[in-house]
Amino acid sequence: MANAERVSGKLEWRVNVPDGTSNVLVSESDQLVNKAWLWLKGLLCGLVLKIWRFLYNAWNLGVAEPKKVIHGVKVGLSLLLVSFFYYMRPLYEGVGGNAMWAVMTVVVVFESTVGATLCKCINRATGTFLAGSLALGVQWIANKSGETFEPIIIGISVFLLASATTFSRFIPSVKTRFDYGAVIFILTFSLVTVSGYRVDRLFELAYQRLSTVAIGTSLCIFITMVFCPIWAGSGLHDLIVCNLEKLADSLDGCVGECFKDDKAKLGNEEGPSKRMQGYKCVLNSKATEEVMANFARWEPGHGRFNFRHPWKQYLKIGASMRNCAYCIEALNSCINSEIQAPDCLKKHLSDVCMLLSTNFSEVLKELVIIMNTLTKSSKIELLIGEMNFAVQKLQDSLNSVPNSFIGPTVSTIQAPNEANRETIPKTAIPSLMDVFPMASLVYLLIQIAARIEGIADAVDQLAGLAEFKLAMDENSKQKKSTNKSTSDNQDHETMKTSPKV
Amino acid sequence: MANAERVSGKLEWRVNVPDGTSNVLVSESDQLVNKAWLWLKGLLCGLVLKIWRFLYNAWNLGVAEPKKVIHGVKVGLSLLLVSFFYYMRPLYEGVGGNAMWAVMTVVVVFESTVGATLCKCINRATGTFLAGSLALGVQWIANKSGETFEPIIIGISVFLLASATTFSRFIPSVKTRFDYGAVIFILTFSLVTVSGYRVDRLFELAYQRLSTVAIGTSLCIFITMVFCPIWAGSGLHDLIVCNLEKLADSLDGCVGECFKDDKAKLGNEEGPSKRMQGYKCVLNSKATEEVMANFARWEPGHGRFNFRHPWKQYLKIGASMRNCAYCIEALNSCINSEIQAPDCLKKHLSDVCMLLSTNFSEVLKELVIIMNTLTKSSKIELLIGEMNFAVQKLQDSLNSVPNSFIGPTVSTIQAPNEANRETIPKTAIPSLMDVFPMASLVYLLIQIAARIEGIADAVDQLAGLAEFKLAMDENSKQKKSTNKSTSDNQDHETMKTSPKV
Repeated sequence: MANAERVSGKLEWRVNVPDGTSNVLVSESDQLVNKAWLWLKGLLCGLVLKIWRFLYNAWNLGVAEPKKVIHGVKVGLSLLLVSFFYYMRPLYEGVGGNAMWAVMTVVVVFESTVGATLCKCINRATGTFLAGSLALGVQWIANKSGETFEPIIIGISVFLLASATTFSRFIPSVKTRFDYGAVIFILTFSLVTVSGYRVDRLFELAYQRLSTVAIGTSLCIFITMVFCPIWAGSGLHDLIVCNLEKLADSLDGCVGECFKDDKAKLGNEEGPSKRMQGYKCVLNSKATEEVMANFARWEPGHGRFNFRHPWKQYLKIGASMRNCAYCIEALNSCINSEIQAPDCLKKHLSDVCMLLSTNFSEVLKELVIIMNTLTKSSKIELLIGEMNFAVQKLQDSLNSVPNSFIGPTVSTIQAPNEANRETIPKTAIPSLMDVFPMASLVYLLIQIAARIEGIADAVDQLAGLAEFKLAMDENSKQKKSTNKSTSDNQDHETMKTSPKV
Repeated sequence: MANAERVSGKLEWRVNVPDGTSNVLVSESDQLVNKAWLWLKGLLCGLVLKIWRFLYNAWNLGVAEPKKVIHGVKVGLSLLLVSFFYYMRPLYEGVGGNAMWAVMTVVVVFESTVGATLCKCINRATGTFLAGSLALGVQWIANKSGETFEPIIIGISVFLLASATTFSRFIPSVKTRFDYGAVIFILTFSLVTVSGYRVDRLFELAYQRLSTVAIGTSLCIFITMVFCPIWAGSGLHDLIVCNLEKLADSLDGCVGECFKDDKAKLGNEEGPSKRMQGYKCVLNSKATEEVMANFARWEPGHGRFNFRHPWKQYLKIGASMRNCAYCIEALNSCINSEIQAPDCLKKHLSDVCMLLSTNFSEVLKELVIIMNTLTKSSKIELLIGEMNFAVQKLQDSLNSVPNSFIGPTVSTIQAPNEANRETIPKTAIPSLMDVFPMASLVYLLIQIAARIEGIADAVDQLAGLAEFKLAMDENSKQKKSTNKSTSDNQDHETMKTSPKV
């Protein structure tokens, strides 16, 4: 190698170090160029790789959620449309150079869900209107009070209103609903008062601003509601239903995993573990739920939901589901614990635990059906009764655990029971410590039953608030219709007897 | 009463109903006026009450968190200052009618924490610059391609860029850091291209927009960083420390509550229950932590934190704390359960559980000290060792639970042990079912020990990443300084021997 380098004709300094390696002394400028080249190459490769990864992620996201692509297209379309107000001469003269306010409104106001867009539109319109009128009032007073006081009055009013409104954005009731309106209020107020000092056409400015904002918002509302609307309310509903399903799957997976044979465990490792992790989505969806419920309140009736659908109740359902998910988290750690329950105890409890787990699934799946069909279920109370019966059965089977299954090893040795010793060898007798994970598991299962009942209660409250109808099969339909006619008659009679005030 | 009404001289119709009541028939117009008056009164009272309650809440918020009031004042101040650019003639002529962009920048960009403000400022400046240059390029191409194609090229470019950028806002990496920049990019691009079609002074527009944005952003950055700065980083740090303390308090409270005498329970109900609920803050602070960590990355070094302080690690600490809080949630339900553990078992385990609980607190409080002083602790490993020793002790004491404490009642009756029966009456022997909540509690305590170790690991990683110094007492300081001088000597020697490349 040293020869080859000599052949290349370059002069080089080589230092042979006693440990057998040799360092080539490269001239400093060569070294700098080399380093810079390597650095640049690394940078470029890194950049290309990063861009490639970014595009790959974007493509995957688009394929997974085409709604997001549609939203992008909708924004592009609205901007294109609003540009026409600027291109076309008559409109241009109508709303003046302020047409840019329409462009700005579209860009700032257009959100991915209908509710968020409506919320921003209403906030923007109200904020602009309130601040505009207030600014005109202040301007009028300032004008009347002479040239010296005019800037002082305007300055003080801007300072005070901006400070107070900014502070009010921290108040929870304002923050959740009128945060954007507060920003627009400050913006419009300072723009109108400050520019009023310069420009002598205040009313015109206020009128133009309002009309352009109106054009922008109405366009946004039209496009967001007509072309493939994405409703925050439906999204929230679907999220809750999906989380209920995940909860059922997680519970199924967890209990199944625990009472499964060890052989089966080895063969089928990846499938259930992914299903079991579903409860983590439930744990992490609090913020999303709150945002969606907040926007859903602004939406008009859509699909199967009325205008005043009790979206807040969905938050309560979400909270009760999280409550249940906490227990599943603890349950999961029982399953993954190193200390495994003794086989004899496991076998003794396996059947009744699996039965309870099946009951969990049935209740949760019935809740999914209630939510999906928006009807009251006649079965749900029966299923909850069955679940509670299974809990009772589990408690009973705990009471009937044979004495020999558990018992502290120490005391067993101290006070040996000859009859038992013969049937079970000493090594097979588990200590109390070994029983504890199992005890914890059983206890958590009982807890989960109570919390699932909590979810059912929350769903039942929703059914009451949103006035879900009873799901009817053919028989009960007929029965119901005859009932209805008799109650109609009764109504007539009560109307006759009750005096009209 | 009927007399009094006759005296007032009004004609009235009265119907006496057989059940003893009598209805006055009021004329319809009177009734309407009455109803309207009542409705108005109710509305006014409700409104006044609502406003009063709002102001009361606002006042309380201001007293509790004066930082929020200060933020409001800061925004007012900046708006006042930026208005001067509009009032003063020379500046007015300098930046033209576009001075309103400066006002707008201040209103939109000024956030409560330094990090959020910096993030928005940098996003706004970068977005404006990039979109401005791109728009100029597109405008130039459109101009060259003739009058027919000009609006088409501009329209297509606006549509495509707006769609793509809007879609990119859904990609997580863009969403967390450049969301606002993307909005500003679309806004500036469409404004410049669209207005460029009308106005023939594109460069001027772009220059004005950039300069006014620069004025607004620099003012915001100056005021937010100089007057009582509120740092997202410090806030995140304090939040994590506060949550660690709450976790320690909750654990203390929960275990104490469980092993306390029933008498003490009745006397002192409200104090501990409030302390015990602290873990719920930990459960609910995920979203806040993420937002704060995201903004903290934009902040320069401040207080005791460097520019590249590993804020992401705080999220890991937060996650490990939530992991622990899930277990506390389950633990809490054990304590509130109706089935209470038998007293004999409780007494047997009380001491060792309380010891473990003390160890939990000690470890968590040492972690608080580490976080507060930003120094590595020499004690923490010892404390964790002690905690694990206490876990071992708990396990041992489970193994030494006297046989008579537990045992299924059924089998006890079937195979009576005469010696035991004499000491403990039959009714006092608890069934396995009664033991289960206690078993669950003990198991959860062991789980919590493991999870607290997880928190300690996360904090240790932070100490490594942020290069915390070792906390030193006087002795080790001296030792360290002598060590340092010898290592300095060693450095000198190595520098002498190693060849300079």
